[in-house]
Amino acid sequence: MATIDYHAQHSPAGAQAQFTIGKFSAKGGFGIGVAGIPRQDVFIGTYRDGAAKCLPFYENAYPREAEAFTQSAEGARPSIRMQAYTEREIKRAYGIATDSWKTDILKLEIFTPLVQVPDPEKASFDELSRALRPSVAMRLTVDNSKSRDPLKAFFAVGGWPRFMALKSTDLVGAASADGYGFAAGSNTGTRVRAFCDWRATEPFQRPEPLQIWLAATAGIIADVPARKKVTLDIALGFYHEGRATFGRDTVYMYTQLFGSLEHVLREDLLDRDRVVRECKRADAELRAAKLNDEQRFLIAHAVHSYFGNTQLLAEGRSPVWLVNEGSYMMLNTFDLMVDQLFFEMRLNPWTVRNELEHFYQHYSYHDTVHSPNAPDVQLPGGISFTHDMGVNNVLTPDGYSSYEVKNQPGCFSQMTHEELVNWVLAGADYYHGTKDSDWLTRRIGVFRECLASLQNRDNPDPARRTGVMSFDSSRCGHESEITTYDSLDVSLGQARNNLYLAVKSWAAYVALEMVLSRMGYDGDAKSAAHSAELAAKTIASKYDAKLGYIPAVFEAGNASATIPAIEGLLFPERLGLLADLRKREPHKKMIETLRLHFQNILKPGVCLFADNGWKMSSTSINSWQSKIFLCQHVARKILGFDFGEEEIKHDRAHADWWRVGSAPYAVIDQILEGKTSGGGCIYPRGVTNILWLDE
Amino acid sequence: MATIDYHAQHSPAGAQAQFTIGKFSAKGGFGIGVAGIPRQDVFIGTYRDGAAKCLPFYENAYPREAEAFTQSAEGARPSIRMQAYTEREIKRAYGIATDSWKTDILKLEIFTPLVQVPDPEKASFDELSRALRPSVAMRLTVDNSKSRDPLKAFFAVGGWPRFMALKSTDLVGAASADGYGFAAGSNTGTRVRAFCDWRATEPFQRPEPLQIWLAATAGIIADVPARKKVTLDIALGFYHEGRATFGRDTVYMYTQLFGSLEHVLREDLLDRDRVVRECKRADAELRAAKLNDEQRFLIAHAVHSYFGNTQLLAEGRSPVWLVNEGSYMMLNTFDLMVDQLFFEMRLNPWTVRNELEHFYQHYSYHDTVHSPNAPDVQLPGGISFTHDMGVNNVLTPDGYSSYEVKNQPGCFSQMTHEELVNWVLAGADYYHGTKDSDWLTRRIGVFRECLASLQNRDNPDPARRTGVMSFDSSRCGHESEITTYDSLDVSLGQARNNLYLAVKSWAAYVALEMVLSRMGYDGDAKSAAHSAELAAKTIASKYDAKLGYIPAVFEAGNASATIPAIEGLLFPERLGLLADLRKREPHKKMIETLRLHFQNILKPGVCLFADNGWKMSSTSINSWQSKIFLCQHVARKILGFDFGEEEIKHDRAHADWWRVGSAPYAVIDQILEGKTSGGGCIYPRGVTNILWLDE
Repeated sequence: MATIDYHAQHSPAGAQAQFTIGKFSAKGGFGIGVAGIPRQDVFIGTYRDGAAKCLPFYENAYPREAEAFTQSAEGARPSIRMQAYTEREIKRAYGIATDSWKTDILKLEIFTPLVQVPDPEKASFDELSRALRPSVAMRLTVDNSKSRDPLKAFFAVGGWPRFMALKSTDLVGAASADGYGFAAGSNTGTRVRAFCDWRATEPFQRPEPLQIWLAATAGIIADVPARKKVTLDIALGFYHEGRATFGRDTVYMYTQLFGSLEHVLREDLLDRDRVVRECKRADAELRAAKLNDEQRFLIAHAVHSYFGNTQLLAEGRSPVWLVNEGSYMMLNTFDLMVDQLFFEMRLNPWTVRNELEHFYQHYSYHDTVHSPNAPDVQLPGGISFTHDMGVNNVLTPDGYSSYEVKNQPGCFSQMTHEELVNWVLAGADYYHGTKDSDWLTRRIGVFRECLASLQNRDNPDPARRTGVMSFDSSRCGHESEITTYDSLDVSLGQARNNLYLAVKSWAAYVALEMVLSRMGYDGDAKSAAHSAELAAKTIASKYDAKLGYIPAVFEAGNASATIPAIEGLLFPERLGLLADLRKREPHKKMIETLRLHFQNILKPGVCLFADNGWKMSSTSINSWQSKIFLCQHVARKILGFDFGEEEIKHDRAHADWWRVGSAPYAVIDQILEGKTSGGGCIYPRGVTNILWLDE
Repeated sequence: MATIDYHAQHSPAGAQAQFTIGKFSAKGGFGIGVAGIPRQDVFIGTYRDGAAKCLPFYENAYPREAEAFTQSAEGARPSIRMQAYTEREIKRAYGIATDSWKTDILKLEIFTPLVQVPDPEKASFDELSRALRPSVAMRLTVDNSKSRDPLKAFFAVGGWPRFMALKSTDLVGAASADGYGFAAGSNTGTRVRAFCDWRATEPFQRPEPLQIWLAATAGIIADVPARKKVTLDIALGFYHEGRATFGRDTVYMYTQLFGSLEHVLREDLLDRDRVVRECKRADAELRAAKLNDEQRFLIAHAVHSYFGNTQLLAEGRSPVWLVNEGSYMMLNTFDLMVDQLFFEMRLNPWTVRNELEHFYQHYSYHDTVHSPNAPDVQLPGGISFTHDMGVNNVLTPDGYSSYEVKNQPGCFSQMTHEELVNWVLAGADYYHGTKDSDWLTRRIGVFRECLASLQNRDNPDPARRTGVMSFDSSRCGHESEITTYDSLDVSLGQARNNLYLAVKSWAAYVALEMVLSRMGYDGDAKSAAHSAELAAKTIASKYDAKLGYIPAVFEAGNASATIPAIEGLLFPERLGLLADLRKREPHKKMIETLRLHFQNILKPGVCLFADNGWKMSSTSINSWQSKIFLCQHVARKILGFDFGEEEIKHDRAHADWWRVGSAPYAVIDQILEGKTSGGGCIYPRGVTNILWLDE
């Protein structure tokens, strides 16, 4: 049995909000814009006869904050015993849209529908309100039918900042000035009362529950009569009023749909049946998919983490879609966006267009380039795009990311070439997936600029091109460009002459040929096709028969073996171009060479860890789940690999990396030999595994 | 030599803002609405030849936050050595309005004028803007005149949240999305450049300073040429836009005067000469006062802490003046307000009226009372006022405080009687100090209600009154009222039959007699006078000749000796009534008895600690600076004590309680045998010592 002892984020779409529980004896709870996991204790359980028993979602049942006021250790007041269920006493069922916990008499369900966010410029108010309502639906069922004594069910959160009473008589619950709250309806058939007190156990030793504004444990208590089963719907809501971002002024779009937190909570309770129905349908669909249980877990967990990172904002009248980079909180990191688009294209393709437009209108720039051999000779470069749009809800000035640094070796250098490739690939994928020819017509000029820029980064001299990036952006100063694999070693980290990026650039040329010819730019299309052929030839030519694979970097005797070499095959496949390319040289040979490359490296000690997890690079212990998922898809669907009985071993390893390795952090992408440093938690990019549903 | 190693808050008026430095190797820095001391490293120093030397205002010069992104411990990049000046190498001069630090070549000055906040309903825009500008003026002078090599001066803050570049070309500095920033002018005569980087030392090992949005150390670097002395004015600014409080909607009034943080910073630099002049004048005035150095320090330190707690807000068109209770952040705690009013009456009496009105209009209530012997028999009570108006910038609902709890023994019970007394005393003091008869005319009805309420709490049956509180508010449930001395033992903590509160109630009756007769309510005035006489008689009668003092509580054989017995004498003195009362019985006897009481208890082992500090109660080790200051004033000015050579010993002990005992917390009021638990830091109430200037 796999452990159930791991955190999961439960998040509405577009609110950068989370209600996180799951890791035993750990903090979690409510958060908006938190860089990681919130630090609240969550108490969900029952009380009878001086003893409370809870699900294990708290670190500290006896906070001593009152002592700061009394200047003395507490003594007199007897404490009620708080006990947590153990793992053995609990059954957890974790789906893409439902997380449920069952004990002897308690059942907790949390519902988070797989939201398809409609295009705000086309959707009705009702559609938008349903999709964007910043709430999470919780249901608590206590089965007291076998007992002749009444008990009390309760939900409470400790470390609750800045308690406020709800401004509504139809709701019983609590709000926080930090922008969130929870409520049950006041007409639920059983008596429900709200409190704010020093500890979750305090209300049970008072004549009646109190609301102490100075205290920091807020909750609700429901009566459960003898011989009865009580089901209590609790709405968990979020409402960040006013400014959402700095640098440029935006607000959360949901503030244009809902007037207050109370409004959100009320609508959540009223809309409960639909939400539960949709969640059950989404769960059933995933259960029905041809996947093993580990794969289902991986998809569900990735999706849970993704939504907590999303922000749908309004800048004036324009919608702005941002996806945060987990606890790093960089905004719309482009090299994540290009991987998340598979998920977004499935659910809400307009967000991909929104990101592309945002990058073009605010975060594109023009540079010059230089050869590493002559860093002071500036040659024509062209358009490219920044690594991100800012960090910590601060939007950076136009043309600059929060991340890229001049004269920086390694991590934090420029990703000019990769982000250029990413705009082309994402743009082509958006067009192909939507047939939005209005958009393509409007932006075909950008695609043309991108082609020229890509080719200049190969070589400004057309006669000396190889299809592969050889020139660095002037934005690097005297250093070199990097790739999204910034924290890996040079095998994946260096951009120039990099196999991973070369294949992705090949894909970009192929994509450019498609869109340019579609729009009648036959000369440009041919030029793109030519570059694609150059790239294919160069890549295939780098195969080292002695090694049995293509080295990661075509420089300085590098001999690393890297799985992401095959990543770039995905886009031509999605664009419907691969069937043809497979038949034509030089593409045929490159694809076959990459197949051979992959076949020879997915081996223990090379690109497999001892636990059967995939190792992105033979020379780094740092491996990335999102990229593994993507490459698994490419290997199976495009390269035709069948991992047979090994597959479940791979998947189990990766599932354990999350269930065990990153358990306290919900989801971490970067795993170091099955463990994690805690950096980059609540990461969104894992949703690449949605590609598995296309197999 | 007294240590210079303690934190001091530097704060504008009305912004709940602070820039805090002073404690060696400790964090401090910028904060708005922070419950305590901010957690930033502050670097102020010079750099030359691979070495930086700074004032000791940081805990960590080598933050490793970049490693979260790189997934590896940093290695390659050589670090510049950062060294801190030691206490011996520094001269600190700490005044009421200036804090300055001098080393061999460095001089740092921070200027915070003793602001008199004008009444917003009467002042001009310019007057208000000068008083409320949310900035702190810093001046950094580097004397390189003896060197033939140039060096660099710098100011940087580590742990800088959410860096933003300043939106202004005339300013060089940094902002934070948390609402603060700093800047030098761009035309200062020397080259100044801004940066944001991983560490304060990083810019010196780059070709040029960079602004890395992802990093968290922001600063400015100024060139100091060889053979030159450079003076750099740096503005430290605060700007919290939008909502200031929850529960009720307010904004900071300064947002109606300044358009942006940049506006604040620019005005600070332009207005520098006036600010420096006013600070020097305020310092000189304190220096000229007939006080010893320890007393001067205590006044200066109290004033620094007070201003950081103030908020001038606008609720619609109405000004709202709030004083936070230090890190507890309770708003306008009434039993602090009544002590801080001596300071506010001196600087800006309209704030006292604003608080009184706010209490009356939003935080008054009517209750019933009961005898401790018959808690279920509810008898007529009357008007009173809540303990506070909320906490953590959440304003509580009308009529309720954040603090007072029903059925609560001890700390967190109701302070009904004390806050009633406080409204009367503060109201009378405000009227007497301002002669605002419009206000008195409008509120004489409230004073009349207060008299009735006070008398009912003595005894609802007029025939059985003693002048002393004997009935508890029904808001207590089955428990008893407490006093402001909530965390002390029963000697000062219990309200009923409490000596401290009895004397203060006597003062309230005396004050009521004055205002009621002034307004022609002769019957009520007489009734008040009668209650005052009853109180005086009762109090005097409780003198225990065997003990040599009046026991703290007239119940259950209590035998604690308490200094605050004499507190209540202050108000009649301030109202100009004491000279007459001294001559008239029964007041004469009571005053003489209190003199004897005090004389007999201010002794080692009774109400003096071993270090010569004053011990508020013989039975508690918890002693409160603000109350000591007040009682010192009463003892000297009203009771005529001359402590002679002992005085400096008392003062030195109290100064060390702050300089040493609460050094990392700036100012703590509650001191436990010279030490502190850290609770209630950056406390505002110490400004009671402004009374010393009246002697």
